[in-house]
Amino acid sequence: MPDLTPDEFRALGHLFVDAVADARAGIERHPVRDVVEPGTVRARFPREANEDPEPLAAFPSLVEAVTGDADTRWQHPGFHAFFPANASLTSLLGELLSGGAGAQGMLWSTSPACTEVEQAVTDQLARALGLDEAFTHDGGGGGSIQDSASSAALVALTAALHRAAPDPDSGWRVRGVTGRERVYVTAETHSSLAKAVRVAGLGSGGLRTVPCTPGSRAMDPAALADTLAADVAAGLVPVLVCATVGTTSTGSSDPVAALVTAARPYRAWVHVDAAWAGVAALCPEHRWVLDGVNPGPGPGVDSFCTDAHKWLLTAFDASLLWVRDARALPAALSITPAYLRDAHSDSGAVVDFRDWQVPLGRRFRALKLWAVLHGQGLSGLRSHLRGHVDLAAELAERIRGHDDLELACAPVLSLVCLRSRSGDAGTTALLERANADGRVLLTGTEVDGHPVVRVAFGGVTTGREHLDVVWDVLSARS
Amino acid sequence: MPDLTPDEFRALGHLFVDAVADARAGIERHPVRDVVEPGTVRARFPREANEDPEPLAAFPSLVEAVTGDADTRWQHPGFHAFFPANASLTSLLGELLSGGAGAQGMLWSTSPACTEVEQAVTDQLARALGLDEAFTHDGGGGGSIQDSASSAALVALTAALHRAAPDPDSGWRVRGVTGRERVYVTAETHSSLAKAVRVAGLGSGGLRTVPCTPGSRAMDPAALADTLAADVAAGLVPVLVCATVGTTSTGSSDPVAALVTAARPYRAWVHVDAAWAGVAALCPEHRWVLDGVNPGPGPGVDSFCTDAHKWLLTAFDASLLWVRDARALPAALSITPAYLRDAHSDSGAVVDFRDWQVPLGRRFRALKLWAVLHGQGLSGLRSHLRGHVDLAAELAERIRGHDDLELACAPVLSLVCLRSRSGDAGTTALLERANADGRVLLTGTEVDGHPVVRVAFGGVTTGREHLDVVWDVLSARS
Repeated sequence: MPDLTPDEFRALGHLFVDAVADARAGIERHPVRDVVEPGTVRARFPREANEDPEPLAAFPSLVEAVTGDADTRWQHPGFHAFFPANASLTSLLGELLSGGAGAQGMLWSTSPACTEVEQAVTDQLARALGLDEAFTHDGGGGGSIQDSASSAALVALTAALHRAAPDPDSGWRVRGVTGRERVYVTAETHSSLAKAVRVAGLGSGGLRTVPCTPGSRAMDPAALADTLAADVAAGLVPVLVCATVGTTSTGSSDPVAALVTAARPYRAWVHVDAAWAGVAALCPEHRWVLDGVNPGPGPGVDSFCTDAHKWLLTAFDASLLWVRDARALPAALSITPAYLRDAHSDSGAVVDFRDWQVPLGRRFRALKLWAVLHGQGLSGLRSHLRGHVDLAAELAERIRGHDDLELACAPVLSLVCLRSRSGDAGTTALLERANADGRVLLTGTEVDGHPVVRVAFGGVTTGREHLDVVWDVLSARS
Repeated sequence: MPDLTPDEFRALGHLFVDAVADARAGIERHPVRDVVEPGTVRARFPREANEDPEPLAAFPSLVEAVTGDADTRWQHPGFHAFFPANASLTSLLGELLSGGAGAQGMLWSTSPACTEVEQAVTDQLARALGLDEAFTHDGGGGGSIQDSASSAALVALTAALHRAAPDPDSGWRVRGVTGRERVYVTAETHSSLAKAVRVAGLGSGGLRTVPCTPGSRAMDPAALADTLAADVAAGLVPVLVCATVGTTSTGSSDPVAALVTAARPYRAWVHVDAAWAGVAALCPEHRWVLDGVNPGPGPGVDSFCTDAHKWLLTAFDASLLWVRDARALPAALSITPAYLRDAHSDSGAVVDFRDWQVPLGRRFRALKLWAVLHGQGLSGLRSHLRGHVDLAAELAERIRGHDDLELACAPVLSLVCLRSRSGDAGTTALLERANADGRVLLTGTEVDGHPVVRVAFGGVTTGREHLDVVWDVLSARS
């Protein structure tokens, strides 16, 4: 049989688990990011794959030999770049079971377990975050696990396009886009929205960049209302407004409730991209991230996305997308050929998650999220989030007291943006110097056209001692 | 710290590996598919997630208690439905290391290891399959790992739309689709193409269903040429022709070379969807699946997709997409905000795989494929493929000799389509009876409007004894 027997897997699996444990335990002996010349790793592979089987027990050391000096270590506690992707060891246990099951959850009937665990866990999480019951499967909406917030934005857009032109004979599903559809963002919105708009065939002309309220990085509701009114007067069709809670650059947030009010007369879909910040709603003191999301007093939004794989201890990929109307995504995305016809699907009593996403197949991703909820509990998750928020507050305090550094904007949750008081060149040099140290990895962005250094706390093992390292690196005299 | 320590993970990881090994070892004690009432699994979850951490050592038995009687077992050797998704234990070892690394391969610089292993392994596999060097990264094209053939079709379509209207000021990226773009398929093409066309904003009106050659289920090249000519005469724009090698229903194949010839005058992108059958090219005797794909004597196709997660021992998701022009996907999909700007990307010396897909983030999926190549070798993979082809040939032979059964069409590789000689009602009853047995799971489709039973061999552990079970079930008198 050309695979391992279960007993061979048992023995090798233990070795591989040990390799993972050893690598995590020793990660701080490495820099966060190796200095690598392009082509280094490829050059270590032979041109042709091996003809005969090679011993798998040697595979971990082979991988180490080929890639061990050519990686960027996202699980290093000094990784504060982009937003960290915290692949907790707890979630890896869930992934192991998921791989073992090897299920395909495209239809309910192809894996009732995969489908219903995902429904149950996203319902539990919705309640824990404080999302209205309308966003649960129990309440007529529902959550799903997408691979990324990018894909979540794309499927939300397809649902919005369908809803904007629902006529089954001449609507979006038949006629496609018309060139008149418009999607509303700001200059701070994540680029995945522009990508979704492009992939959906609207072109960059379909994207309206609404101004921010002067002095802020938040969409101006009055400007949105004006833009919507002018577009409709010009015969254009407002399809989707994307409100961001916690932008990638600086953590700024759009005023969701006011945007919903502005969008409502035009029936435009309101999608909230809270990819990074949304999970903070688990903590009562951070529940402001849901302002305007739930119905009552305002009407609430149509969809809400937050990533468990950024800051909720769950290994990539696990982007959570909740919608208020469980029929919205299937109405846009369902196509059923003969070989996928299914009595349970036809009954309407089940959810087929293939109709909530672009791909047909899907992994049992809910298991890793369930493992995290089970093994850490909501209290553990809150303590994880609060630890990083505390680190950010402490770093901000130190920056405020420093002669050469200043905050570029107020810190948001676990994200701190800073710059050199000496100007742009000094800020750029600061970022380069910090990363050259090897113990931390930071990324930059621009605010008002000027360079800024971001420190995004969020690593699974990032603690107070790593704040001290960041401070050591940032506060060193050049 | 709200996660396991490496040593806690080590101990628990061994337990979880054992749980996976035990489950695989005992899988034949269960039916392939449990009979489940919708809602069974969800009802076993409490409304709220647990507040406090629960012992992870108990998690495997909790999962078993909640889902153990409510699953469809894709790794059961009696699973012959759809196309099996063979999550080999070998590939799970690679997944373990991938989870341990927890890398994000969106840019080369965010994980040179992830990026370059994927380049190297897809280059090796291209050579092993017999794809022309033009499809390798070394040769100016390149492979990438997508989550599914559906997503591969969508990104191929975006590249085709961009190429058909490359003007940077007024082309697809700016203006979007015009309503004149057309995509060419047959009634046998996988529904993911229709879904890609819909998501891309073309609407079902953008999909041209070209007739098959009479008496076949393969696209008629003359009909394609006629349709293309008529469309262009009518001011329409041929964008993409999808040629399928090994359709989902019956395993039929389109005549790729002739379709390329027909498409060439119009510069339409030719995409080959060989999701299931393509990997068979590893065996010289099945290399016909590449007919017309490579350049010379004909011009060859633009993109070629086959799934390692169907029949190449690699756990979902690992759909392989090769393109002839490494610039094609980035030209269509690249968008670079300040926070993703990168000196290595700007140098042009590296591949940023985020520009080859819709999502931004991406897992280190190449590790599981590398583990399979390493641990099984090309010889092991060939033996795996040949074993299933032999089973299909043997089943077909038995059907030919049976009084009540007949082949619905000639078997293709590991897929056999059959029906009852007594007519449609008998065939439908045959499928129901076979699945009620519990030892096998088969799915049906339609051929020429009549029901057909499919037997798709491909499970990791499916061997001769499981053919005997299938035969026992199919040949039993009703």
